[in-house]
Amino acid sequence: MEIERPYLMFLGDVPDMLAAKTAIGVVDWRRDWCLGQVRLAGCKADTGLADMTIAEGARQGAKTLVVGAVNAGGVLPDHWVESVVEAIEAGLDVASGLHMRLGDNPRIREAATKHGAKLFDVRHATQRFDTGKGTKRNGRRLLTVGTDCSVGKKYTAIALEQGMQARGMAATFRATGQTGVLISGRGVALDAVVADFISGAAEWISPESDDAQHWDLVEGQGSLFHPSFAGVTLGLLHGSQPDAFVVCHEPTRTTMRGVRHALPTIRDVIDMTIALGRLTNPAIRCVGIAINTKALTEDAARALVQATGEEYGLPVTDPVRFGVDPIVDHVEALYKTLP
Amino acid sequence: MEIERPYLMFLGDVPDMLAAKTAIGVVDWRRDWCLGQVRLAGCKADTGLADMTIAEGARQGAKTLVVGAVNAGGVLPDHWVESVVEAIEAGLDVASGLHMRLGDNPRIREAATKHGAKLFDVRHATQRFDTGKGTKRNGRRLLTVGTDCSVGKKYTAIALEQGMQARGMAATFRATGQTGVLISGRGVALDAVVADFISGAAEWISPESDDAQHWDLVEGQGSLFHPSFAGVTLGLLHGSQPDAFVVCHEPTRTTMRGVRHALPTIRDVIDMTIALGRLTNPAIRCVGIAINTKALTEDAARALVQATGEEYGLPVTDPVRFGVDPIVDHVEALYKTLP
Repeated sequence: MEIERPYLMFLGDVPDMLAAKTAIGVVDWRRDWCLGQVRLAGCKADTGLADMTIAEGARQGAKTLVVGAVNAGGVLPDHWVESVVEAIEAGLDVASGLHMRLGDNPRIREAATKHGAKLFDVRHATQRFDTGKGTKRNGRRLLTVGTDCSVGKKYTAIALEQGMQARGMAATFRATGQTGVLISGRGVALDAVVADFISGAAEWISPESDDAQHWDLVEGQGSLFHPSFAGVTLGLLHGSQPDAFVVCHEPTRTTMRGVRHALPTIRDVIDMTIALGRLTNPAIRCVGIAINTKALTEDAARALVQATGEEYGLPVTDPVRFGVDPIVDHVEALYKTLP
Repeated sequence: MEIERPYLMFLGDVPDMLAAKTAIGVVDWRRDWCLGQVRLAGCKADTGLADMTIAEGARQGAKTLVVGAVNAGGVLPDHWVESVVEAIEAGLDVASGLHMRLGDNPRIREAATKHGAKLFDVRHATQRFDTGKGTKRNGRRLLTVGTDCSVGKKYTAIALEQGMQARGMAATFRATGQTGVLISGRGVALDAVVADFISGAAEWISPESDDAQHWDLVEGQGSLFHPSFAGVTLGLLHGSQPDAFVVCHEPTRTTMRGVRHALPTIRDVIDMTIALGRLTNPAIRCVGIAINTKALTEDAARALVQATGEEYGLPVTDPVRFGVDPIVDHVEALYKTLP
């Protein structure tokens, strides 16, 4: 599946910015893919895109209406259905990150059938996968892993793609979550795949490359130390068979997200990722640490980055605050000398 | 979901015993739950149950027709649909381990609706699960883990249930695969659960017990060292939060099932299971080793069991050949002294 662009971003009438997190994530990274935003009366979110109606968006060439907001419960309210049907009738495809499938709504399903529109439910994998094989594939792969969920794994992978491409390296971001799929126009929300096929889906997401020097930058999920999601994390680690990984960390968090478990150390994550990852790639190694320092002052952030670098002997940065150059420098230099 | 008994075992017209593996597994362990078998002309499998027609089974009180055989491709051939519909019309529920859902066949769906029959697709989880929480639950849990897939994890867990119950210990087998679900009348085929909910489903499968001394014997899946399925294995390990585990091993295998990877040692499995399992149960420990010695002579089997016991300082047995008493003895003695 490949979601056609430009996108017309639908925000509905959500009460705050948080409910439009998916739309904001897409606009952050792919502003040039986005033609404008459609907001209903009362909408309190704003991506900064030009406001327009669906008819205006269609006239200006929008190809896909992206439902980039969630309402309470993750369902599609009736008055949003109106907009979706209007977009389909105007010739657009529709992509959604909602828990419910677009086609489960009869009016949307009928409109899509009638007008030949494609419906992309990015939280639902439609393709069938093989089980993972663990066979080494050509090309290089870098996976972002985390001490916890929501610590910057997607951001780091996309920033690395940009940083590598900026210096002429062949690099492709590989999405494994819903926002990432909309940002890359393809990929799979791995948490929605049936358990038997996690590593198989991860193999599909980062396929063999003709170019032995090409980097797949694979978006990590969860944490090997998160009691809710470690199975997804391990299947992704085995399937993506990374040569290199970057540990992402948020230094002010005291418990794992959504549960009461303590955070592992960065060292714990490095050691366990290598211990488990070498099953499908014996050459796996840690190539950097990405710290989300948003909650720290500039001085504290710089001090933490420097201290962590000294402790681990690895390039350390906050990709948002300081960019990813230290990690890209290291990767570029290191893999010049590796087979 | 609880599948009503007695079962009437449907074998169709499969060409060999292997295609009736599920039926044979159920009859091995739950012969007294099975009223008889229904075989179509040309059937080459035989569970040893009394042959009868669906009408005879219904008259004698069968509650559920169990489709205990698979045909090539895992689909339900038209002439099997006849039998399923006949069973529904005779008042039975139907349970199936096929990949396709019974209700995806319009004739079966309509008959079930009309007659109020329940359809159990044991390869498909119908209930919704929460994500795993990793919170310690009351009661004791033992998980069977493996150096590989298909090394006796289900057999060992059921044999331990029997062995414990025989000496008056409170013990319940907890199924995580399709045959296990039919053997226990409940449970979830974990490999069919959506990835985000693996550990949550495992928590649901072995719920909190009022009795602190009650043992859940949880059927393991896959192996932490299998590149296709380790994610399922880890989610199950975290969700079942075992106090104790038994390593199951097949000594003649040279590569992991279905892939080219070498087998881990029993020591590798013990160490990694403890390293990962302590996230949700810091007291996790290995309490025994179950070796499938089917391919060995009696003398070679005894020698291997003894040598492995000396190497690991743990009770070692072949549950089929020598029974599970050595492991139950050890568990009973050990946990008398533990809080």
